[in-house]
Amino acid sequence: MPMIDAANIACGGHAGDPVIMRRTVALAKEFGVKVGAHPGFPDKAGFGRRVLAMTAEQAYAEMLFQVGALKAFLDEAGLPLNHIKPHGMWYIMMQNDHKVNDAAMRAIKQFNVPVYGLPNTLHQSGAQKYGIPFIPEAFVDVNYTADGVLMGVPGSRQMSPKEIYEVTKGLARDGILPAVDHTPVDVGVKGKPFTLCLHSDFKSCRENLAAARRAVDEVNAELYPNTP
Amino acid sequence: MPMIDAANIACGGHAGDPVIMRRTVALAKEFGVKVGAHPGFPDKAGFGRRVLAMTAEQAYAEMLFQVGALKAFLDEAGLPLNHIKPHGMWYIMMQNDHKVNDAAMRAIKQFNVPVYGLPNTLHQSGAQKYGIPFIPEAFVDVNYTADGVLMGVPGSRQMSPKEIYEVTKGLARDGILPAVDHTPVDVGVKGKPFTLCLHSDFKSCRENLAAARRAVDEVNAELYPNTP
Amino acid sequence: MPMIDAANIACGGHAGDPVIMRRTVALAKEFGVKVGAHPGFPDKAGFGRRVLAMTAEQAYAEMLFQVGALKAFLDEAGLPLNHIKPHGMWYIMMQNDHKVNDAAMRAIKQFNVPVYGLPNTLHQSGAQKYGIPFIPEAFVDVNYTADGVLMGVPGSRQMSPKEIYEVTKGLARDGILPAVDHTPVDVGVKGKPFTLCLHSDFKSCRENLAAARRAVDEVNAELYPNTP
Amino acid sequence: MPMIDAANIACGGHAGDPVIMRRTVALAKEFGVKVGAHPGFPDKAGFGRRVLAMTAEQAYAEMLFQVGALKAFLDEAGLPLNHIKPHGMWYIMMQNDHKVNDAAMRAIKQFNVPVYGLPNTLHQSGAQKYGIPFIPEAFVDVNYTADGVLMGVPGSRQMSPKEIYEVTKGLARDGILPAVDHTPVDVGVKGKPFTLCLHSDFKSCRENLAAARRAVDEVNAELYPNTP
Repeated sequence: MPMIDAANIACGGHAGDPVIMRRTVALAKEFGVKVGAHPGFPDKAGFGRRVLAMTAEQAYAEMLFQVGALKAFLDEAGLPLNHIKPHGMWYIMMQNDHKVNDAAMRAIKQFNVPVYGLPNTLHQSGAQKYGIPFIPEAFVDVNYTADGVLMGVPGSRQMSPKEIYEVTKGLARDGILPAVDHTPVDVGVKGKPFTLCLHSDFKSCRENLAAARRAVDEVNAELYPNTP
Repeated sequence: MPMIDAANIACGGHAGDPVIMRRTVALAKEFGVKVGAHPGFPDKAGFGRRVLAMTAEQAYAEMLFQVGALKAFLDEAGLPLNHIKPHGMWYIMMQNDHKVNDAAMRAIKQFNVPVYGLPNTLHQSGAQKYGIPFIPEAFVDVNYTADGVLMGVPGSRQMSPKEIYEVTKGLARDGILPAVDHTPVDVGVKGKPFTLCLHSDFKSCRENLAAARRAVDEVNAELYPNTP
Repeated sequence: MPMIDAANIACGGHAGDPVIMRRTVALAKEFGVKVGAHPGFPDKAGFGRRVLAMTAEQAYAEMLFQVGALKAFLDEAGLPLNHIKPHGMWYIMMQNDHKVNDAAMRAIKQFNVPVYGLPNTLHQSGAQKYGIPFIPEAFVDVNYTADGVLMGVPGSRQMSPKEIYEVTKGLARDGILPAVDHTPVDVGVKGKPFTLCLHSDFKSCRENLAAARRAVDEVNAELYPNTP
Repeated sequence: MPMIDAANIACGGHAGDPVIMRRTVALAKEFGVKVGAHPGFPDKAGFGRRVLAMTAEQAYAEMLFQVGALKAFLDEAGLPLNHIKPHGMWYIMMQNDHKVNDAAMRAIKQFNVPVYGLPNTLHQSGAQKYGIPFIPEAFVDVNYTADGVLMGVPGSRQMSPKEIYEVTKGLARDGILPAVDHTPVDVGVKGKPFTLCLHSDFKSCRENLAAARRAVDEVNAELYPNTP
């Protein structure tokens, strides 16, 4: 919590239960961290990282359910919902599956908050289509293909803190990072504000986060020396 | 739906899933029926009718979660949350278990809507304690003990439509109904507006509902002939 | 139960819980009906009819778990496990997805009972590969494509009892039935013993079953007049 | 695993899923550790440590289901089921609730293996009633009341490794340990072989286990110097 600006809180789909959600919201509040909803496929056994072929109706209703549940804890804590950021395979599929993306965006639209997503994918065009504010994000602890498609955690190599530091520096400076086959990929965030997403279930997640934070802070100090 | 004024919609705890909840909200809207949240123990296998000894923290968070999830569907439909009415064993235990009642009432308080409950039990005094508007209700398809304690469905005899008609008439006129052992019981609704709760999972639920509706309409016409 | 020879009992994955499983086994025993395991994707909300991309390890373990659980009730009742017949999308995917089929067959192999499946698909060749006895089956209440691929329930038109009667007659006589586009399809059961599978969750399931049973009995009487 | 003689493996009720169960069985096999079934209340959110008032039918079927599922993995691994040891609140309630104990024992009886339980409680008399071999066990990382009733984990103080070492020594020598209020309690294992049960979800579980193992080994060496 002390190292991040915004937390994606699981909503009981792929992970989380009412007590965990409430405690995590309280923790975020304590640290002044913004809270986003992190809806995932309703598949705890697979941690939401397996394809689950929901119909559009199921996906739409599932997202309303999960985000609505989280909002109850935010309302109690007096915090606003900062954004929505789908989890795992849901997010991965939304990159390039029109049907999946569309149902999700229609649900997200109901909440009047920005969506976090990948630039130059359906994430961005879907958000535009529905008039949802779009915050670009990038990943530095898992891989992209050479075509710039984000790979899911199960098929991806988890990066070490050292790699994360290096990748984040390059990304923050030039908007480019190495794909899984080392091809440099432009992930579409160059010159714009963007968020970095790191996974809290990875073994070295604290070290990963510290590495990314350090890289970000260094580049920010270098590029924007007069910004507090 | 055409026979009722308000529906208690299960919120995914003892029953319901996002699609069912959304469809039921839409149905209620179509029929102009008010919607209340019907949170239940998170125990689908037991339909929320088994004792589940949640801690106060678990119970509190569970109720926020379930009601919050339902609210997302109400928000989408443009309907207000009309009331909260806990389900099954949760409701039964809240009658006379201070700890269970207190955690539930604190959660209900967050939503600024009335609670439906049993007069002269902790339902009523708990609501008063937390400043929650209290709507008295009575049951005509299951039993009360001679002491006026509502019995849970599993331990109760399900009443027939004919019995329901008779019991509802007596209740609506005099506020009195026969306990499980036939003792007349004053259930505390005499001379006040109150709601009747009927179970939609009983085999003859349509007939039960029709019988209760007819009895209510007849007594209303008799007692309040000039009210539309 | 009185109309069928063998029942596929859900094992708590897509449907069923311990009490339902035990009661259904008892019912089958009462009617002298053979019991097969009907493992399904662990997705009750989707009734096992949505794609769920389990890894091979997950699928293998899931099937052992579900069939093992059912066996406990069969052991108690003194009944043997008659066969295994995967449910819904799992069964559909096993027709033509090598990875899915292989993991399932390796799990089925552990139980030393026949598998029910579709002739001329991976069901049959997978069973052969692992030395699992194969019982061909056909469906008359849902559709096949013109290529003879069984369609899942969600994408299929449910047949009426009248259609089921006609289709079953043709199938039982000639091994041919009309595909979804009315093309006649040879489903590979001509001249061999085979089972018919009907869905017990369809609205007209009793009438469907009666229609299929009547057709089967009539053709059997016609083709094998001297068999009791 | 290297420090224990027998493992209680959760069966998907309070914890565990098919993959975890299969991997844990494989791990036990690798270390030559005996495997017992550890059925728990079907309540993952509460880790089986909350009262769940199952009916006798539900409890009986639930235990068959869970133990049957585990047996599939043991069969695959070529290991026998060594014993059954109910988990958490189920085990706690079986000490002194006749109805709960009876339903559980009738289910355990189906599997023809010993039950682990607490001497001088319904665990022991119930096992005797149904002719189930009874292995006495004792706990050293949680508390007993002064009356010798084992307290559930939520209401108990978790013992430190140092305390566990001391308590285990006294218990192994004299069959006596300090109750929660420090009263010495005879837990009924003096002079008999018995098992020690330690919780693998406690923070210091490795240290706890090492402490208990060391104490047991020391007392065994002292009392039975010629036993290998």
